[in-house]
Amino acid sequence: MSATWGKCKSVLITGSSRGIGLRMVKELAKSSSRPDTIIASARNPTGSTDLQELSKTYPGIHIVTLDVDSQQSVSSALQEVRSIVGNEGLGCLINNAAIGITADMQTVTPEAMMKSFQVNTVAPLFVTKAFLPLLQTAAAQSSGMGIHRAAVINISSILGSIKHNLGEGATFRSYPYRTSKAALNMVTRCLAADLGSDGILCMSLHPGWVRTDMGGPLADLSVEESVSALLSVLSDLSEKDHGGFKDYRGDDLPW
Amino acid sequence: MSATWGKCKSVLITGSSRGIGLRMVKELAKSSSRPDTIIASARNPTGSTDLQELSKTYPGIHIVTLDVDSQQSVSSALQEVRSIVGNEGLGCLINNAAIGITADMQTVTPEAMMKSFQVNTVAPLFVTKAFLPLLQTAAAQSSGMGIHRAAVINISSILGSIKHNLGEGATFRSYPYRTSKAALNMVTRCLAADLGSDGILCMSLHPGWVRTDMGGPLADLSVEESVSALLSVLSDLSEKDHGGFKDYRGDDLPW
Repeated sequence: MSATWGKCKSVLITGSSRGIGLRMVKELAKSSSRPDTIIASARNPTGSTDLQELSKTYPGIHIVTLDVDSQQSVSSALQEVRSIVGNEGLGCLINNAAIGITADMQTVTPEAMMKSFQVNTVAPLFVTKAFLPLLQTAAAQSSGMGIHRAAVINISSILGSIKHNLGEGATFRSYPYRTSKAALNMVTRCLAADLGSDGILCMSLHPGWVRTDMGGPLADLSVEESVSALLSVLSDLSEKDHGGFKDYRGDDLPW
Repeated sequence: MSATWGKCKSVLITGSSRGIGLRMVKELAKSSSRPDTIIASARNPTGSTDLQELSKTYPGIHIVTLDVDSQQSVSSALQEVRSIVGNEGLGCLINNAAIGITADMQTVTPEAMMKSFQVNTVAPLFVTKAFLPLLQTAAAQSSGMGIHRAAVINISSILGSIKHNLGEGATFRSYPYRTSKAALNMVTRCLAADLGSDGILCMSLHPGWVRTDMGGPLADLSVEESVSALLSVLSDLSEKDHGGFKDYRGDDLPW
């Protein structure tokens, strides 16, 4: 892990009870160069024995209950996080919580579409909006752009790339997942336009096709491989990446 | 108007009570080379005196009540349209109905986001899904690709271009409108992957910034200018435009 993570004072990761979120918490926690404060949030963190064990093994992991789809839960979590980070603010928000509803032309329903937009698109926007004052506090104490200052990272997917959804790239069919991630990419870009002047870097990140509950057993990458690569990409972010869309290898993806 | 519109047997335009939809009905209806059957649908067509007058002035305009946001209304409209087009099927579906909610970082609400997704993204998908059998019937009677055979045209916006939303292109701020139109563009691309083998052309179209109720009085183009250009672009569509995103001048737009 790059030394840059040591300059990030605090990170909040949503959806930390399993998969990529859980592994991010672990990788960061065990690193010699790490944020002092790691906040692992999940809808039901007490239900994740993995997360509970992590927080016993490594110091400086704060577990916060956060259902990204509930404004009330977001408000409670904000108060809790504010008291954890104090005057230093929040250095990095990783919007990782998501729902993986797959439905093709035959099986897609309005409900599947709306639920996906709610969790994968609207929730990251309002979590970001809620935590913005804390991100601004962190950003005001540093200069340049990157995780050493303040950043909003939206975990998106190449399946949200509209350009890529053609020919070979269109093999995997899913209206709810693809549209909600494309819309999340637009949220990233809108946030970039709004938060750039505060010095808060905003970007979308594709973790690869990963062997999680969502990705399934046939996926290309282990969770370890994906997360190790993702954290390395994040540590190298600078102003040129603001408003961008990258994969776990650091390669730019088309919108 | 190009002669190609004369080879399109029937067209259904949603949101025809005013603005671009209404003008499309008029331009097509008065043309010497026109579809035999023009179906003008709107949520409340009896409330539009403009549309009522059009249907008295020109022959072959069928007015159908269609609230794109109501599955029941879509089902009723489908039955009505099926009896109008008969064995010829539906040649062209123009998903034009939309809602123009503008909200920036300060004013955006989850409700504004969800309502925009519902009307601007989910509704066009399920209107298309409902009318698909009629489009397939028309497509089976012809070859090649274009409005002479069968087409689904989603009226999108350059504000839905994620790539364009940067620098100058990001001047207009609206989370609900931009995200719902970006998601609509993904719907277009998903539909293109699904319907191409049936010979049904699918694309997104940006009408320009138009002086309608939605575009406001300061917009670049009159409704007449926009619609005349749009219908010309549509008349020239062929296989190479399948799954594309064009503006009213026929220029390709980035996703």
